[in-house]
Amino acid sequence: MKVFKSLCLFLALTASSELFSQEPDSVLISRIYREALTNTWSYNVLKQLCKEAPHRLAGSEGSLKAVHLMYQKLLPVADTVYLQEVTAKRWLRGKKEEIEIIADGKRRKIPGLALGGSIGTGDKGIRAQVIEVQGIEELAKIGREKIQGKIVFFNLAMDPMDMSPGRQYGKAGSQRFNGAEKAAYYGACGTLVRSLSNSLSEYPHTGIMRYVDSIPKIPAVAISTIEAENLSKQLKENPRVEVSMKTWCSVPPNEKSYNVIAEIRGSERPEEIITVGGHIDSWDVGEGAHDDGAGCMHSMEVLRIIKTLGIKTKRTIRVVLFMDEEMYQVGGQRYAQWVKERNEKIYAAIESDSGGAMPVGFGCSASDKQFAGFLDIKPLFEPYGVKLFRNGGGGTDIRFLGELHVPLMNLIPEPQRYFEFHHSANDTFEKISFRELQLGCATMAAMVVMLDLKDSFN
Amino acid sequence: MKVFKSLCLFLALTASSELFSQEPDSVLISRIYREALTNTWSYNVLKQLCKEAPHRLAGSEGSLKAVHLMYQKLLPVADTVYLQEVTAKRWLRGKKEEIEIIADGKRRKIPGLALGGSIGTGDKGIRAQVIEVQGIEELAKIGREKIQGKIVFFNLAMDPMDMSPGRQYGKAGSQRFNGAEKAAYYGACGTLVRSLSNSLSEYPHTGIMRYVDSIPKIPAVAISTIEAENLSKQLKENPRVEVSMKTWCSVPPNEKSYNVIAEIRGSERPEEIITVGGHIDSWDVGEGAHDDGAGCMHSMEVLRIIKTLGIKTKRTIRVVLFMDEEMYQVGGQRYAQWVKERNEKIYAAIESDSGGAMPVGFGCSASDKQFAGFLDIKPLFEPYGVKLFRNGGGGTDIRFLGELHVPLMNLIPEPQRYFEFHHSANDTFEKISFRELQLGCATMAAMVVMLDLKDSFN
Repeated sequence: MKVFKSLCLFLALTASSELFSQEPDSVLISRIYREALTNTWSYNVLKQLCKEAPHRLAGSEGSLKAVHLMYQKLLPVADTVYLQEVTAKRWLRGKKEEIEIIADGKRRKIPGLALGGSIGTGDKGIRAQVIEVQGIEELAKIGREKIQGKIVFFNLAMDPMDMSPGRQYGKAGSQRFNGAEKAAYYGACGTLVRSLSNSLSEYPHTGIMRYVDSIPKIPAVAISTIEAENLSKQLKENPRVEVSMKTWCSVPPNEKSYNVIAEIRGSERPEEIITVGGHIDSWDVGEGAHDDGAGCMHSMEVLRIIKTLGIKTKRTIRVVLFMDEEMYQVGGQRYAQWVKERNEKIYAAIESDSGGAMPVGFGCSASDKQFAGFLDIKPLFEPYGVKLFRNGGGGTDIRFLGELHVPLMNLIPEPQRYFEFHHSANDTFEKISFRELQLGCATMAAMVVMLDLKDSFN
Repeated sequence: MKVFKSLCLFLALTASSELFSQEPDSVLISRIYREALTNTWSYNVLKQLCKEAPHRLAGSEGSLKAVHLMYQKLLPVADTVYLQEVTAKRWLRGKKEEIEIIADGKRRKIPGLALGGSIGTGDKGIRAQVIEVQGIEELAKIGREKIQGKIVFFNLAMDPMDMSPGRQYGKAGSQRFNGAEKAAYYGACGTLVRSLSNSLSEYPHTGIMRYVDSIPKIPAVAISTIEAENLSKQLKENPRVEVSMKTWCSVPPNEKSYNVIAEIRGSERPEEIITVGGHIDSWDVGEGAHDDGAGCMHSMEVLRIIKTLGIKTKRTIRVVLFMDEEMYQVGGQRYAQWVKERNEKIYAAIESDSGGAMPVGFGCSASDKQFAGFLDIKPLFEPYGVKLFRNGGGGTDIRFLGELHVPLMNLIPEPQRYFEFHHSANDTFEKISFRELQLGCATMAAMVVMLDLKDSFN
């Protein structure tokens, strides 16, 4: 009996892959963290993605380069890698924007970025007086008479006192998304939008906007938070300040594009799938390092770590690098449709699209019973500083799976500095912390492995 | 009565400075945070410090520029600003280090940084075989015979599995601080030291080292963690690898230097002083943005915010920008000695010297009763994400006040990425987050005001 016990102990200690299920969970997690925290793969792949394939708006040259680069990187760490075709609706910024503040016969150039989806003014440009509003709600109060023929300047700031920058973004976001449509309804000829950033910086931040067919389309341009403050001050002193805007945006023909998908097949229930992903596209400025190169790495490392440690997951682990999160989410929609067509069972879907900072938790939208399963594994993560297990989770790309009753989750990084990078030329590889990226990868891998091992969502 | 109540409400709502004590604490704190989170002063001052006065090793030109620049910046936000003279012992790196790995007749240059205090080799340099050890403890086991005449390569890594990088640093730190002395004891002719960083990066990280008089002095150079990994691998394949080191360090004559001190006088107990500070010196590479420009800003903003909001603190608030934290702490020692000579009562001393990331808490070393007072104000900070109120605090510069039984505290920022910057050319202004810096300033100001208002340490 004693010999048998010793043998068991020996087998438990020699880490052959089949024996992982006999390991205490905390030991398995520490092995996952150690592998992530001593490896440079994700950092180096992210560097290549950022430097060789920046400006990855769906359908662009950068986005195609990224697809092929990530496909190559995934081959050695997955059982299967494939491209899932999607049709990318395109939008092109064209020549650099020319924005000028004109007052008392003086012209001052300021940096600006057309919003994604905006029409261009062409060489003719527009020039008009400016009326400042704090969000779209004010337009109705001000009324058509004062707005007609002017450029509406949306200057609602993200509330610095809100410690949730994501919530700040949500609250101030409508002026970017719907501002042009609402301003045009009252007769405006263009809009300037204060960048959605909780920093006072010189970078303009772009992002998607929408028109509606029944209302004339007017151009929309983001200016930096510092220039928004300046313009607001200037308007208080001189309401007759004018702005001249020239933008050269266009809508080229659709292009073929792709989600990049990679899988490691499950050993017991391969028909059950855990989907983990980020988006491979990015804005056409910056390098998409935090948004969402980091999320792609968090996801890809799950496979590399499982492969390297020889972990046999019960379920199939599938990484999806979604195309076109930033504009129309054709990748997310195509993936959900495909899952539905094949009648696949997605056991869980986890998205990382909030940057590469220190991971602090996960959000989870699931049934009460499933959420309890999620809470059960929380103690395993606490030693690594991952303590926030929040009710409510998901993401822009995986939300289309929601109607299939898939539990939706997202990785939550420390959020305070994310909106200094988001959608701007400031989102570069140099702003990524090696250690924080590694911690994010470790945390995502540990979550995927634990959900599977513990059958958390049964 | 109703009129009186309305008047009280009116008075409480109109924010005249004398009325702050009638404000709920949470309102006062939110006013402090709002002031910090909507202001660019600290960010702009830090930019100037980093760009106009980088390389601020005590006694250097950069350090003197910094003293005069910060003096000027403090004038408008304090009642009194003065310079406290200290004698800076100097150390000069001199010409850029030349480090080469020599194997099989091939030479490969790698970046290196002489450790602070190291002797130089001069043009002659040294060239010898290398013996790798994991920390100073291994030297005794290996013994003189194998060490004699060689370059000892200290390759103990900061433990990536330790979620406290400060603790990692402490554990691996002795090989940098005492390595040369210990290696020389066994007859080594020089040391290479793996940089104290928990990132695998190409930056070497310097830092102070010490000799003892009874043992020959040998040169000590830090190499990057990546090159340390490379060298270790190479030595396993070929133990006859040699290293050639040339360094041109020297010790110039002492220079006059200064602590920069600024005060706002207390309104009720001006003889009681809350000291808050960081260190104005930095290493001679990089810009000292996180180490410790950020800590200087956290401290200076306390005065700016108190002044701007017209808060009347009971006690005198004194900012000290300490000279020479990095080498010999002459500033910290001089300050404590001066406090002692004047028989001053320091009510509390708070240091910030752990970088400019998101503030997550404070450490505090005080009597049990005082620590209970510290815990009492914790709930006020929790809405701002500042939740870690830890027993045990202080800092390198304020520790000299400890013998005067002063409660010692320190601001704790999120620590994971700090050692990517620390003591390296990577510690630049561009690595500072505006939002996180503002949050640090807000948190420090709120702490100082609350300790005073609540008489936490009585």
